[in-house]
Amino acid sequence: MTDSSFDAAEGDQCFEDFVPGSVRTSGSVLVTEEEIIEFARRYDPQVFHTDPIAARRSIYGGLVASGWHTAAMAMRLIVENHLFHVASVGSPGVDEVRWLKPVRPRDRLSVRVSVLETRRSESKPDRGLVRSLVEVVNQDSVVVMSFKGVTMMLCRNAQEASRT
Amino acid sequence: MTDSSFDAAEGDQCFEDFVPGSVRTSGSVLVTEEEIIEFARRYDPQVFHTDPIAARRSIYGGLVASGWHTAAMAMRLIVENHLFHVASVGSPGVDEVRWLKPVRPRDRLSVRVSVLETRRSESKPDRGLVRSLVEVVNQDSVVVMSFKGVTMMLCRNAQEASRT
Repeated sequence: MTDSSFDAAEGDQCFEDFVPGSVRTSGSVLVTEEEIIEFARRYDPQVFHTDPIAARRSIYGGLVASGWHTAAMAMRLIVENHLFHVASVGSPGVDEVRWLKPVRPRDRLSVRVSVLETRRSESKPDRGLVRSLVEVVNQDSVVVMSFKGVTMMLCRNAQEASRT
Repeated sequence: MTDSSFDAAEGDQCFEDFVPGSVRTSGSVLVTEEEIIEFARRYDPQVFHTDPIAARRSIYGGLVASGWHTAAMAMRLIVENHLFHVASVGSPGVDEVRWLKPVRPRDRLSVRVSVLETRRSESKPDRGLVRSLVEVVNQDSVVVMSFKGVTMMLCRNAQEASRT
């Protein structure tokens, strides 16, 4: 890992493009029983995620997606709709991850990202931090998961900024 | 989702078995380049997770695992080593998720779970909440990720407790 600076690609959205209060929504993803089970067998093999029959007798009354699977599906929507053309250089972490409602087969999930605050880095002037509220919403407009994330983004003239 | 109570299976560890201050460590998992790319193509297709060549020019200087992939690998270790014989009924969320160091191909990760506090549910006397610090540690004993999680666990005599 080097500390040298990286240019944002032409046309990418940069730190300066993220304004507190702005809200972006994503496309959507259909949750399938097959994918719930496939993810859970590999990463979260609890019966209410892997076995539709046993899940009926669980506290959830049926098969539900692993919370980490829901996070991963949300990340896919975030990357495709928010980060593909954004000069993101990663995230130090997320806070207040909440699994609010069960996610079940045939749910359709989308993501709503609200910019909470932005702050230019003091130690690395070529980048800034964007803090956002991420809400995962199902087909009934119910928020099934939420978290607050921090993304490091390059500033528009990252190379120049890093030299000043 | 019903509110009826569920019995803990015989031999399962229950709420009462989790004591603040106790620490459990897990087995380990080997991180492979193939799995990093496979997970990222599906859930987090940023180039520093999907393309070993392009990743060299990124801020990370090489391929790194998606933070959500690291969380999923940790969850697998938690389920296999901590939850398989525990009367867990899910988690409302996690806090302070921190990706502290890059996770790279050929890293070997294990998990250390420290019980921070426990609290019997007031509204549902058949269960209690266990709050834990989860640390994902690599082969050099470096903590690469951490989070604080809450797990709902059934009490030893869940049926009886729910009737009182």
